[in-house]
Amino acid sequence: MRIGDDAGAIDLGSNGTVCGAGIVVAPSSTGEVVAVVRICRQNEIPIVPQGGRTGLVDGSVSRPGEIVLSLERMNRIERLDPLERVAVVCAGVTLEALQVAALEHGLEPGIDLAARGSATIGGMVSTNAGGVMAFRNGVMRHRVLGLEAVLADGSVYSDLTRVVKNSAGYDLKHLFIGAEGTLGIVTRVVVKLDPSPRATATALFGLPSVEAALQTIRLALESDAGHLRAAEAMWTSYFSLAAAAHGWSEPGVPLNQPLFLLLSLGGAREEALREDFERIYSEVMERYPEATGIIAGSRRQEDDLLRLREDTGVLYRAHPHAPSFDVSVPLSEIPAYLDRILPGLAAIEPGLAPYVFGHLADGNLHIILNRQGPLAPDVAEAAEGVLYQQLREIGGSFSAEHGVGSKRIHSLLATADPTKLAAMERVKRALDDQSIMNPDKVLPSDAWFVRSSRPLLSDNERRLPPQNASDHKR
Amino acid sequence: MRIGDDAGAIDLGSNGTVCGAGIVVAPSSTGEVVAVVRICRQNEIPIVPQGGRTGLVDGSVSRPGEIVLSLERMNRIERLDPLERVAVVCAGVTLEALQVAALEHGLEPGIDLAARGSATIGGMVSTNAGGVMAFRNGVMRHRVLGLEAVLADGSVYSDLTRVVKNSAGYDLKHLFIGAEGTLGIVTRVVVKLDPSPRATATALFGLPSVEAALQTIRLALESDAGHLRAAEAMWTSYFSLAAAAHGWSEPGVPLNQPLFLLLSLGGAREEALREDFERIYSEVMERYPEATGIIAGSRRQEDDLLRLREDTGVLYRAHPHAPSFDVSVPLSEIPAYLDRILPGLAAIEPGLAPYVFGHLADGNLHIILNRQGPLAPDVAEAAEGVLYQQLREIGGSFSAEHGVGSKRIHSLLATADPTKLAAMERVKRALDDQSIMNPDKVLPSDAWFVRSSRPLLSDNERRLPPQNASDHKR
Repeated sequence: MRIGDDAGAIDLGSNGTVCGAGIVVAPSSTGEVVAVVRICRQNEIPIVPQGGRTGLVDGSVSRPGEIVLSLERMNRIERLDPLERVAVVCAGVTLEALQVAALEHGLEPGIDLAARGSATIGGMVSTNAGGVMAFRNGVMRHRVLGLEAVLADGSVYSDLTRVVKNSAGYDLKHLFIGAEGTLGIVTRVVVKLDPSPRATATALFGLPSVEAALQTIRLALESDAGHLRAAEAMWTSYFSLAAAAHGWSEPGVPLNQPLFLLLSLGGAREEALREDFERIYSEVMERYPEATGIIAGSRRQEDDLLRLREDTGVLYRAHPHAPSFDVSVPLSEIPAYLDRILPGLAAIEPGLAPYVFGHLADGNLHIILNRQGPLAPDVAEAAEGVLYQQLREIGGSFSAEHGVGSKRIHSLLATADPTKLAAMERVKRALDDQSIMNPDKVLPSDAWFVRSSRPLLSDNERRLPPQNASDHKR
Repeated sequence: MRIGDDAGAIDLGSNGTVCGAGIVVAPSSTGEVVAVVRICRQNEIPIVPQGGRTGLVDGSVSRPGEIVLSLERMNRIERLDPLERVAVVCAGVTLEALQVAALEHGLEPGIDLAARGSATIGGMVSTNAGGVMAFRNGVMRHRVLGLEAVLADGSVYSDLTRVVKNSAGYDLKHLFIGAEGTLGIVTRVVVKLDPSPRATATALFGLPSVEAALQTIRLALESDAGHLRAAEAMWTSYFSLAAAAHGWSEPGVPLNQPLFLLLSLGGAREEALREDFERIYSEVMERYPEATGIIAGSRRQEDDLLRLREDTGVLYRAHPHAPSFDVSVPLSEIPAYLDRILPGLAAIEPGLAPYVFGHLADGNLHIILNRQGPLAPDVAEAAEGVLYQQLREIGGSFSAEHGVGSKRIHSLLATADPTKLAAMERVKRALDDQSIMNPDKVLPSDAWFVRSSRPLLSDNERRLPPQNASDHKR
């Protein structure tokens, strides 16, 4: 094991990650991770695992007295079987590296997100990453067939299953998926691959309402020529900012539509996909005569459209450190949700308004406030109150794909089902009794003490506590 | 709550389920389930939950002193939203009832299995059911967006999320999925729905090898005209038995091929799907000139082909109580696996041979031995030794979709990763400290006592213990 030597040198604190730890270890094998964990357990040293450090909720920040365990040297694709359509990768492999390797066999991992170049498979498993294809293929959890993880006692949970059906006892890999390193360190992952389409086509629709967008998505889901790969929505304020920043304009797509919907189809023949978009467009026009649209005629045009949605940096250049939120809203509830949050935010502070965009087909909305961050604590608290109110009760989530980390713990405690919180704590204690695995992430390490001395309020009584974490740049 | 009254009368012991319990309760709401659990907890009475009692591993058998909790009266579809493509159902709704309701909106639950008429959604969640579409849509776990479960302490885990993205803390619903009622009683489920294809087409291929079948599946996965919905394999001995039993014969498909592959495509136009099967067939013929095939020309022909695979009752009529196994094998390992088990079984007893059929695209093989059951204990032990040997180590599973129940506990203990067993026990203790939830299913209730006094053998030393449960009729 190398501790802080040249080969394992780490770029501390990039992406805004706060690295308070004095030591960064970068093991190159599962055995080395075990050795680190054993030393830490013996000495009660908390461990903060790190992948590509692209997380947005401070899940890999560290403090003095902790050590950072970076998986970046464990970056080998160990197996890629085109007939099985399965890859076995070490945790530090980036999504892009896996995408490139799979594409050589006409395959793809079935999950995609903008941080593909630095996000690692281990990190994506630990945060249960989402992205643009989740409405179709599920989130990271649904792409994982097996995994290996090092537990708090130094034992290795080894489940390198390469099949989708395995009912041999509790499927505990799902505990490690999305636990943000608090229950174990994911070291190896078996990822399901799908055939990559031979052709794609992309279209942008300007639409009058969420309902119109959902109807358009349903038409695209039933395409004869291919399958829907992305359904990204951008509401006016975001879209016009992005279009202006990129100098994008199209006569056929005026910028004053309430909602813009970017659809991508994958299939065998590009021409057939474009024809299908024409059919979809004419059906949409029949129902919503005010609809507008454009079908990308070239790869370049397609890339230009995708960039409007993917390059959210334009927002943060306009509003440095702008407060960002990441909610899931059941599709039928989105109109009412937006109708509630717009006046709700404006009532907090004159002019306070959201940029809204996201993965409409699965109800995942990204909401960025038009303010330079961080917000004053009382404004932040009020904004969360507006954005998170009743989200769980209506079947949504205050954290869709970004996780909890340390930044959203107070929101989790304020909004979660008390039975779920209690069960989470029992599971955490069962697997990490010393609380050395990424402590104070997802759950506060004193959660059960807090709970026993200060019982949770009932659903009606609970209110959001003050926010003390500050938003940071994406 | 009604205990054993007329309205809740239960047909005890159907499907061969052993019902030793003196009391069967059939609550009609989550509140009534809570009341039952609280009474049982106070009095330390073990609870055995039951759905449609279609399980194959004695997961719902009960003993004197236990009570059976049947979910069959909780059979309401509470919500079916065509725009969200989501259904919220109570646990006792049958798969078929959900399929019928979804189809009215052009949707389907994306999972299908032969017991659809009696298998309940709650039972399918608790056993993490698989079936024919799992290679494409995943298993039951991947179709569940949210669930409600009553825990051992009478609290209600309420996660009725209707979106696929939810990273608000540990996603503990996955603990209850596949736990066979040992961690909680699933009372309500949110199921993801997909558009149902407007047309289907089905073809049967006679093929020389597993490799040829996997290549054929890959061609079908890349169909231009639709998407693959089923890829079911039947090896010669099963197929000829089924064909004879149903009086099925086709001049174009001689019965002496090593392997038969049934493929179904779904899409917009039946004609396009059939044309695609013709293209696939000609590509297959080019590589494997000995291949044969037939494309169903009518709904009747399609049903006849599907029945050959689905009606496995022909086997049990030929061999009453025949011993059955349900393994997952990574696709690239299937030829070697079959090459090993055929001589392995014959070496146990002259003439001992398997009928093999199953869901080839996901590696799930059903193996039925050509013997009237139950086997003598030494033969059963030797057969398991042959069939389960190294399955986990090569990335497969000794139990693909049937679960563990009480029948396969000894196999789980003999073959599982010791770290996984230890973690399972810790989780069970964390959520059900009195062990009142379906005790002696999945894990023996004295597991941690056994483990502490008699440590598990190392991977190399472990052998299968004698089997004491007898096989029973499907």
